[in-house]
Amino acid sequence: MSLRIKQLHCLLKQNSLDALLVTQDENITYLTKFPASESWLLVTPKKSFYITDFRYILEAKKGLKGVTIARHTGNMGAAVFELTKAMKSKRIGFDGQNLSYAAYQRLKKACPKSQKLIEANGLVESLREVKDKDEIRQIKAALKIHEQAFRYLQKIVKPGFTERDILLKLEQFVKARDAGFSFDTIIASGANSCYPHARVTNRRICRNDLVLIDMGVDLNGYKSDLTRMFFLGKISNLVKKVNEQVWESQRRAIAKIAPGVAVAEVDYAARNYLETQNLAKYFGHALGHGVGLEIHENPRISQKSPAILQEGMIITVEPAVYLPGKFGIRIEDMVLVTKKGCEVVSERIY
Amino acid sequence: MSLRIKQLHCLLKQNSLDALLVTQDENITYLTKFPASESWLLVTPKKSFYITDFRYILEAKKGLKGVTIARHTGNMGAAVFELTKAMKSKRIGFDGQNLSYAAYQRLKKACPKSQKLIEANGLVESLREVKDKDEIRQIKAALKIHEQAFRYLQKIVKPGFTERDILLKLEQFVKARDAGFSFDTIIASGANSCYPHARVTNRRICRNDLVLIDMGVDLNGYKSDLTRMFFLGKISNLVKKVNEQVWESQRRAIAKIAPGVAVAEVDYAARNYLETQNLAKYFGHALGHGVGLEIHENPRISQKSPAILQEGMIITVEPAVYLPGKFGIRIEDMVLVTKKGCEVVSERIY
Repeated sequence: MSLRIKQLHCLLKQNSLDALLVTQDENITYLTKFPASESWLLVTPKKSFYITDFRYILEAKKGLKGVTIARHTGNMGAAVFELTKAMKSKRIGFDGQNLSYAAYQRLKKACPKSQKLIEANGLVESLREVKDKDEIRQIKAALKIHEQAFRYLQKIVKPGFTERDILLKLEQFVKARDAGFSFDTIIASGANSCYPHARVTNRRICRNDLVLIDMGVDLNGYKSDLTRMFFLGKISNLVKKVNEQVWESQRRAIAKIAPGVAVAEVDYAARNYLETQNLAKYFGHALGHGVGLEIHENPRISQKSPAILQEGMIITVEPAVYLPGKFGIRIEDMVLVTKKGCEVVSERIY
Repeated sequence: MSLRIKQLHCLLKQNSLDALLVTQDENITYLTKFPASESWLLVTPKKSFYITDFRYILEAKKGLKGVTIARHTGNMGAAVFELTKAMKSKRIGFDGQNLSYAAYQRLKKACPKSQKLIEANGLVESLREVKDKDEIRQIKAALKIHEQAFRYLQKIVKPGFTERDILLKLEQFVKARDAGFSFDTIIASGANSCYPHARVTNRRICRNDLVLIDMGVDLNGYKSDLTRMFFLGKISNLVKKVNEQVWESQRRAIAKIAPGVAVAEVDYAARNYLETQNLAKYFGHALGHGVGLEIHENPRISQKSPAILQEGMIITVEPAVYLPGKFGIRIEDMVLVTKKGCEVVSERIY
């Protein structure tokens, strides 16, 4: 039985649950180290079951260790309650954030009277917030390819390229290294950069242009997430000034990062600095988020979040200023919370 | 107001709803022709509202026509009920298949006593089942690139290539045509082809090998989905025989397709033929599915589905035989239901 599943058993006990139905791919992958797809994992203190269908049964048999494979033929709910009955589980936790309302209704219908479904959100996610050594190694491996890709772009991107040309170059580079992308890459040049989540267009890069590139590498399920500004030729004084202000805002946030610190305090450090520069109104999103098997995971680094930093968390710090119709500057790095402070795990090229 | 939103108004009336909260990206994109992301659409008989946040507001203002943009600052539920209150809506439909159980609970908490949340699943999806002329054109455009890619592969794939090499070639080809992929391409060579949803490996293609390629092109949101077998050199008599049996099974299914026919009958035609050849036990999944803005949409072509074919539906027909440890053969085409019968919209290269 894996250490991660053992840790989950403690959470089941703390929540008075006899079993937990894990319905999100990343949560199942975290617990089993098997790339789950369209399947559920039922965890009980004695045994765990991977509930899957015809399409995935052969891979599951080959790749899953320490977990019993249960095949269903269309009715996952019936399969779940057959197993919980056999395991004498009465209180079955489910993850309301990763089950649709309609799927819950079907599950409830299949639930026998002797058993009870109990909403138990975020249990596996809470384990995933703190990365173990193996995960840190995997995220750093994704970052390595990521940074190679950025250095490659720095060399080749020239006026005349379209945003889509850059995307193609980037995709070839990353795919050739057996890696993928963790989200649709944002390549926003000129005024397009003032859209925080811009889509790639056929706009051609000009002389003295700027390009915001926000991308994530996915290597064996683990993700990276960095944003860099590429300046081609001369930049205006305004761009230069805002760029420095965003960097300064990021520096102030990173300086706060240490175990025991409230994430709201980290967000405040960045936002408050921008406020002193009269720029906070152009920074409308949160400062960052955890990264791991998902591109956005806990903790969320925002003013509203009650989360406290712990050693082993890996978070992004991505302050930004978007000047409508003009340009946007976003700088995003990844930071590991260490025993006494933090380590910026991405290269910071100034 | 778009024709599609008008059609939805009729469904609201039929279901005694004063408003519908549309929470799935593809459903919103279908209704507005705007590529929705992390936003909701509230449709009322008088006005529709796109509820979004800071990150998407500029694009929404630029790209959305005939829909009012409502900005929220974190609490989407509060934004919804402010609008329904202003519109005097009492009965608010929501889509239980596209809202998590937890998100429903938050929405319910925000719902004032004077209003009621009513589960109303599949309304927009039911409109999407039948494609209009513009959609058929868009799907055919995706198919065109798809078939060019397959012809390109037929020319270049040689023994010595790995599955991943093929993937890289394919990705370069498709991306260079401003298109993307609708799902993770399946490239399964040799015995890997007996896994219905195989992952791409570094296995090297040999002489006299077979490769199953199941891919989908995504062009401006509309998808294609085809599976072809690539045979390199000589194939064994068993592979040859099973390949012919799968083709025959597909031919029999396609021969049934016409408006008014039950999808279960189409599935039966393929499955029953395989049964007569003692192969049905190696065909464990449904025969096909609708394709459009999503890669899998209604109608599902299975034995259990009560759906009836209608003119304008576009479905896949993908019988298969997977012989464990040996090989798998799957043949997948896309078929448009026409006024009197059907049209295979993909090229069938025998």
